[in-house]
Amino acid sequence: MLTYTLDQLARLLDPAHHGDSDMLIRGVSSLEEATGTTVAFAEDAKLLDKVMASAAAVVLVPKDFPDTGNRLVWRIDKPRIAFLKITELFAGKPAFTGIHERASIDASATLGAKVSVDACAVIAKGAMIGDGSRIGAGAFIGEGVVLGRDCIIEANATVLPGAILGNRVVVHPAATISADGFGFVWLEDHHHKVPQIGRVEIGDDVEIGACSCIDRATLGVTRIGRGTKIDNQVHVGHNCDIGENVLLVAQVGISGSVSIGDNSVLGGKVGVVGHLRIGSGTTVGGRSTVTKDIPDNTHYWGTPAREFKKAMREQAAAARLPELIKQVKELQKEIELLSRLVNLSEHE
Amino acid sequence: MLTYTLDQLARLLDPAHHGDSDMLIRGVSSLEEATGTTVAFAEDAKLLDKVMASAAAVVLVPKDFPDTGNRLVWRIDKPRIAFLKITELFAGKPAFTGIHERASIDASATLGAKVSVDACAVIAKGAMIGDGSRIGAGAFIGEGVVLGRDCIIEANATVLPGAILGNRVVVHPAATISADGFGFVWLEDHHHKVPQIGRVEIGDDVEIGACSCIDRATLGVTRIGRGTKIDNQVHVGHNCDIGENVLLVAQVGISGSVSIGDNSVLGGKVGVVGHLRIGSGTTVGGRSTVTKDIPDNTHYWGTPAREFKKAMREQAAAARLPELIKQVKELQKEIELLSRLVNLSEHE
Amino acid sequence: MLTYTLDQLARLLDPAHHGDSDMLIRGVSSLEEATGTTVAFAEDAKLLDKVMASAAAVVLVPKDFPDTGNRLVWRIDKPRIAFLKITELFAGKPAFTGIHERASIDASATLGAKVSVDACAVIAKGAMIGDGSRIGAGAFIGEGVVLGRDCIIEANATVLPGAILGNRVVVHPAATISADGFGFVWLEDHHHKVPQIGRVEIGDDVEIGACSCIDRATLGVTRIGRGTKIDNQVHVGHNCDIGENVLLVAQVGISGSVSIGDNSVLGGKVGVVGHLRIGSGTTVGGRSTVTKDIPDNTHYWGTPAREFKKAMREQAAAARLPELIKQVKELQKEIELLSRLVNLSEHE
Repeated sequence: MLTYTLDQLARLLDPAHHGDSDMLIRGVSSLEEATGTTVAFAEDAKLLDKVMASAAAVVLVPKDFPDTGNRLVWRIDKPRIAFLKITELFAGKPAFTGIHERASIDASATLGAKVSVDACAVIAKGAMIGDGSRIGAGAFIGEGVVLGRDCIIEANATVLPGAILGNRVVVHPAATISADGFGFVWLEDHHHKVPQIGRVEIGDDVEIGACSCIDRATLGVTRIGRGTKIDNQVHVGHNCDIGENVLLVAQVGISGSVSIGDNSVLGGKVGVVGHLRIGSGTTVGGRSTVTKDIPDNTHYWGTPAREFKKAMREQAAAARLPELIKQVKELQKEIELLSRLVNLSEHE
Repeated sequence: MLTYTLDQLARLLDPAHHGDSDMLIRGVSSLEEATGTTVAFAEDAKLLDKVMASAAAVVLVPKDFPDTGNRLVWRIDKPRIAFLKITELFAGKPAFTGIHERASIDASATLGAKVSVDACAVIAKGAMIGDGSRIGAGAFIGEGVVLGRDCIIEANATVLPGAILGNRVVVHPAATISADGFGFVWLEDHHHKVPQIGRVEIGDDVEIGACSCIDRATLGVTRIGRGTKIDNQVHVGHNCDIGENVLLVAQVGISGSVSIGDNSVLGGKVGVVGHLRIGSGTTVGGRSTVTKDIPDNTHYWGTPAREFKKAMREQAAAARLPELIKQVKELQKEIELLSRLVNLSEHE
Repeated sequence: MLTYTLDQLARLLDPAHHGDSDMLIRGVSSLEEATGTTVAFAEDAKLLDKVMASAAAVVLVPKDFPDTGNRLVWRIDKPRIAFLKITELFAGKPAFTGIHERASIDASATLGAKVSVDACAVIAKGAMIGDGSRIGAGAFIGEGVVLGRDCIIEANATVLPGAILGNRVVVHPAATISADGFGFVWLEDHHHKVPQIGRVEIGDDVEIGACSCIDRATLGVTRIGRGTKIDNQVHVGHNCDIGENVLLVAQVGISGSVSIGDNSVLGGKVGVVGHLRIGSGTTVGGRSTVTKDIPDNTHYWGTPAREFKKAMREQAAAARLPELIKQVKELQKEIELLSRLVNLSEHE
């Protein structure tokens, strides 16, 4: 287990720091779960009570945080970023473990320097694995697949032929890359498979969640842009073109040939109809169903997805509907009454 | 194949039973699918016709079931429970098969008595597997993972470092336990991964469905309480705290840091926004989207989830909306007419 | 890489063709992605501009397509079908690779002729694999499972005991067949597992998508009819009876004991409540929730699913609701005013 002294951590954040505390820190924690050997952080003065009550050895706070008396805090510009730095120290790096004797690597595959392949992983003909990449137990790297440097393919993930991955790509367990797209044509009396012979290209620093599926293009390419992060159980259909730094939250489903611009976010369980374009910088709220193109830099929500404020207005209105029905009934009565009165007065 | 005589089964339900029938029973079945060698059951007098028509050797019925003439039935207090007992006889127990020669077990792993490990399963450094547990073909048990007694980890399931499982936990195929949570912070111009270094703790008698994902906590712990049953393709985000005896039906998606009380039920495809609390004894209907806390012992439904009766009222109202629009148009006309009449009479 | 001359392809479509072009064709493509060595197609005269701009060596077009001048096209009855034929040529057939030395096959399993089993695939006791079938790396074929001829079980797929597959069945990576259904009864103070001891029967020419789960029947059988195609991340519960030539699009979830007639289509993310019957020839639109039986040859949509046109009417009405609320408020005012006027005139 990694440990650091309090002073070592302080110097990480401020090289000018010097001290002689040999207090051992064993990890990071939330304020609530802290122990006397963890570092925690708080960005907001509202958390003062929690900071005071926390067992943490030290709490990182902004420079203008209220006074904490004897409670040890480090006042610092961006506590979240500092906390992240410390967290990364404790996260460590997965060790280089080399090729396990129970790994199965085809003689024609090319492995870079410092590649680790765990037991029962299988690397097929002609695959190329970049320097420093790690292939987990039971993972499969198909024929001709190309992986860049420092990729992590977790246990039991499957990367089939047609896939080209950039550097530092992470594929979580049971995810599938380059499985066949869903393409059939009806001829005479049954569905006839359209061969799926395109590619999947995944940019640098992409992360693909557990049990997520990025389908191979029918023809051409399914593309996931650099820096895009995909949560668990997401489906990306054949021939999609997902931009850079996009977030796809868990259980999103994207039909074939959809394009999504850079920096957009699709909330959990969003569904997108085929062949649409979602702009860049756009947010689609959780559970929305996208049924037509969405412009750049907008916020959409609902089924069908529409401009967020409009959707909220309609939803608020829906909640008033039972009341509205009563009101209309009331109006009908009043009008009938009025009408009778008026007619009477007409005939007077 | 397991077989019992009719008398053996009768004695199982009633030790006082004695008889000398050597009729062989080969299994259990529904009334409709029964053969002359199966046992079926019926809890409701409405099923009398089906009971009479069934080919079953014997049908378990409640004590007050109508007369069945020559049709063999066993009248018994709780036919469903009796049927369950018999079913379990035929289900049998998976046999102890020992360690397959193609299993890969790190020398530093600790295996209890009567542990079975199938071919191409991989058990990593320092993992501990309790007595009587079974690891299926191709499953992966990561470094330092702890499993209790009599667990079943099915083929191709993945249990990554950070996971601690209780006794009699069942993990179905392609499920993933302790994969990284989905946590990123945007610094400067790209998403920056927050190391996911917490744990997953799974209580006794929990069942995790095929292709379900229980993410590792960022810090601290993702917890699944004793006796909770999780269906297929369910996503439980980092740092969730799921109570005891909860049911999560297929394709439920739970964002990070959600807590759910004991004995609650989430129907299929329910989605829950992050950091919420769902009470205990609560039912959330299928396809609901939970967007705020839900109290104990309630029934919620809809998107957004709201009290069930309220949601039903609103839904019924929505179906009347096209009619309502017509009515309002009608009212507008009538009022215009009235208004003209009144104004006329005013000016008379 | 497969290559054909232009003349070879022309003769495939029209045996009477003769020519002496030795232009090499290396694949098929869309119009937009074409190169000088690919074949593309266009079914619609609206695509004339794209056809003219395409770099394709040749474009397949209908006989009545507008004049294309020097641009090489092949005029043909059904360009899509012709294109499909050519695509299949380039798709090729996965080669027979035999039994990998790192495959693990129980001595009691029966393998037909020309069966391929890749590294770290596991075939258990008594399993039977038909002629020409291929078992991918890390896939698991459980005890007693039966596979027909020419099946493809992709890498890391899991087929558990109880499954019987027909001929030419394709199971994509990380899919699970015959995992336990989700069945529990509450006895005293906890959920009690109902043993899942039924079967799964999958007809000829069925395709099961990546990370999809077809659960084993509790008793009896879960059935997938001949020619049905299932996309990724679909859940089919225990004891379902899915007809022939059905399409289940990605992330569909079907509860236990549902039946679906032949030739029906369920769009992405559709959910179906247990024990319902969906007719044959029926379409259920994406994201619908089926809460009651649906007749044959209909089009349903929405939550709850209802006849498509009705659902569309209600949805259009919902968008007008905020305006309707204003109108009703306006009417209330007018009526109040009128009412005052009338009462005044009454009392005059």
